[in-house]
Amino acid sequence: MSKMKPRTLSGFMELLPARQVQFDRMVELLRRSYSLYGFTPLDTPLIEASEVLLAKGGGETEKQIYRFTKGDTDLSLRFDLTVPLAKYVALHYDQLTFPFRRFQIGKVYRGERAQRGRFREFYQADIDVIGDGALDIVNEAEIPSIIYKTFTALGLKHFKIRINNRKVLGGLFELLGLSEHTSDVLRTLDKLEKIGPAKVTEILTDDFAVSADTAHRLLNLLTTDDPMAALEAFTGQSVLFDQGVGELSTVVKYLTAFGVPKDHFMVDLTIARGLDYYTGTVYETVMTDHPEVGSICSGGRYDNLAEYYTDRKLPGVGISIGLTRLFFVLEDQGLLNDDLLTAPADVLILPMTEDLSHAITLATAMRDYGIRTQLHCEKKKFKQKLSYADKMKIPFAVFLGEDEVTANQVTLKDLTTGQQVTCSTEEAILHIANTLAMRAGGTPIRE
Amino acid sequence: MSKMKPRTLSGFMELLPARQVQFDRMVELLRRSYSLYGFTPLDTPLIEASEVLLAKGGGETEKQIYRFTKGDTDLSLRFDLTVPLAKYVALHYDQLTFPFRRFQIGKVYRGERAQRGRFREFYQADIDVIGDGALDIVNEAEIPSIIYKTFTALGLKHFKIRINNRKVLGGLFELLGLSEHTSDVLRTLDKLEKIGPAKVTEILTDDFAVSADTAHRLLNLLTTDDPMAALEAFTGQSVLFDQGVGELSTVVKYLTAFGVPKDHFMVDLTIARGLDYYTGTVYETVMTDHPEVGSICSGGRYDNLAEYYTDRKLPGVGISIGLTRLFFVLEDQGLLNDDLLTAPADVLILPMTEDLSHAITLATAMRDYGIRTQLHCEKKKFKQKLSYADKMKIPFAVFLGEDEVTANQVTLKDLTTGQQVTCSTEEAILHIANTLAMRAGGTPIRE
Repeated sequence: MSKMKPRTLSGFMELLPARQVQFDRMVELLRRSYSLYGFTPLDTPLIEASEVLLAKGGGETEKQIYRFTKGDTDLSLRFDLTVPLAKYVALHYDQLTFPFRRFQIGKVYRGERAQRGRFREFYQADIDVIGDGALDIVNEAEIPSIIYKTFTALGLKHFKIRINNRKVLGGLFELLGLSEHTSDVLRTLDKLEKIGPAKVTEILTDDFAVSADTAHRLLNLLTTDDPMAALEAFTGQSVLFDQGVGELSTVVKYLTAFGVPKDHFMVDLTIARGLDYYTGTVYETVMTDHPEVGSICSGGRYDNLAEYYTDRKLPGVGISIGLTRLFFVLEDQGLLNDDLLTAPADVLILPMTEDLSHAITLATAMRDYGIRTQLHCEKKKFKQKLSYADKMKIPFAVFLGEDEVTANQVTLKDLTTGQQVTCSTEEAILHIANTLAMRAGGTPIRE
Repeated sequence: MSKMKPRTLSGFMELLPARQVQFDRMVELLRRSYSLYGFTPLDTPLIEASEVLLAKGGGETEKQIYRFTKGDTDLSLRFDLTVPLAKYVALHYDQLTFPFRRFQIGKVYRGERAQRGRFREFYQADIDVIGDGALDIVNEAEIPSIIYKTFTALGLKHFKIRINNRKVLGGLFELLGLSEHTSDVLRTLDKLEKIGPAKVTEILTDDFAVSADTAHRLLNLLTTDDPMAALEAFTGQSVLFDQGVGELSTVVKYLTAFGVPKDHFMVDLTIARGLDYYTGTVYETVMTDHPEVGSICSGGRYDNLAEYYTDRKLPGVGISIGLTRLFFVLEDQGLLNDDLLTAPADVLILPMTEDLSHAITLATAMRDYGIRTQLHCEKKKFKQKLSYADKMKIPFAVFLGEDEVTANQVTLKDLTTGQQVTCSTEEAILHIANTLAMRAGGTPIRE
């Protein structure tokens, strides 16, 4: 029979077993972290009707979308978790209770050009709080505190959450007479870090007819060392601006109450977030040792989550972690903690008798105690079986020969230390459990 | 602005929050159960190159497949987790260690005709053990023992695992001179339960020229009350048959060693599993109180997992649970245990002071202890906030007014019993933790 060469599509992450365990451990930690803050898990279809998913229309992502027909139906794969959330909330509004706090960790699809570290199928890990008509400002401070706790729990040490407020920017543009060009200026400012202040000034003056003096004042203000003090000088002239400065102050104040240390967040007036729908606080998070990676967690406050589906005003605030990309970067930089157990089993039982009943009974006893146990009953040499345990990094092996069966004992070998004891099943179970508990600990990321 | 009516495609399950928690709890339990047996988690792309995914070609499922192009690439969504496993093992063969034991819980896609309880996007939960060249028979007994443990852990009480062996059937066909029609006869026998013995006899005699006497002997044997004894009478005439009977006896013997009670499994010679690639033990699992549901967990032994991708012989054994359908049936039959906590938070904090710092500090303390905590800081009446906790079924509320803040205390209300105490933060935390621990327990399914 002629064979088809197996392959995985480029841009689609597929991990080897040990890496998969590390990835799953990060997902599990995110789930636990989000749950501590009272977010409910959500799962929505990967496929939606195109007219529903693309109700907003246009946008840069449209040509990246996986869109196709099945029968007469025009379908699309979701490209983020926000649009499905908007649909979900609008559709199930009557059965939900607000504020509605949900987390969702799932795959999304974007047909980007294939290049190293760019994925077409990737996990996003989102949290959002949605209000019905109104949503208190405290949520805008709680969200970055969740980012802080989550990244810290993952083991990330050198990161900084950058915070800004779109009303501050909008108010500034008002004061500087730039209101007409708000979107263009925002989009230009978003490139500040990438292209530098000179180039930004050039675009503002050349393309959007901003005066050189105004561009200069704007950039000076945005890149000052003490932004809150600098903003103070402009208050009292624009309602929008004053409101933004008030919100920013409140968020900073509550962030401290939430226990976020000063070196893990900063007000950065250059953070704009290109997306149109942010209306208040916006966030980006950078790994301070790896600024080239860009933002690993972004989001913000919006006033109308579901405006394409409903007249109801549903303001919210949320953030999204690009988990697949983050994992790729961590692996690439050698930041994954390879000391944590990645073996699928805690113990490998090697029966050395013809009849396997005793080995099976032993395996059942260990599993009942919660020890992850694998029986190795294949017809292989003893040495090969030990090498199997070694390759899989299984921490313990149990040998069960005629002698052990007769004496109602087992021989337990700690494959990390090489120590070997012959003891009762109960003693073996306790020894494994205690040793694993002692060796446990450590975070998925090491820096 | 004109609104797009939000909708979710038919055949795509989308759960409300409390149901989602119940679904996730089942998934979590499956993951834990599979892990106890030393299976490693796997995640593969939902999209594969069509030529790779459909290398086997033909088949009933082909027209159900979601297939489309993006750019020049012919893509398909996976329709099961077995083909991606075959691809994975063939592709990464050099980096895997055998026996390779993996579990995978993920969505698959089949464009079936929409009808109640039929899904186009659904979760499968699979386990497989893959050997390199050979695989011991003990694996064929361990797999149904995992099914038993898993369903029992879920809370299912009335189920039975039906076991057969394809070699027994193949050998019987040899003995009865039916070898030419093996596939046809197998496919016909698969319908036995649905259409009854008379109709099966009719198909065998009319369509496949089986003599009435042979059809009669076959059906008598397959439906006998003591199949192992009935098989004994035919031994010594066919190598294949004897091998099959030997395997079946071994599996039954080890199943008892694995602790599977007699009333949870039976040898059922009518189980054929239509798929061509099973070669040894085959399984089906039925809910004995709901036989109309059909098999909720099926699988078996195969000799060549990846024959379309590699010349290597990779025998394996595995099973698959159709999780979305099972969940739908359980919900439909009222078998989901609604007594288990589905609230996203254990406690709702209601600050009654202007400054929220104390409430935030309290929330942080509770979260640090592992209590899932939500702050309710919206501008709502006290009664509305309590009604929010009630609707969400959050078990505890904490009131934090000026009096409490001054006295460095909190008022804790148990929303299940109505009891209210004013105490220190530490006492409140311990009270919540202890009460929740006492109330925990119970399985996701109640029968």
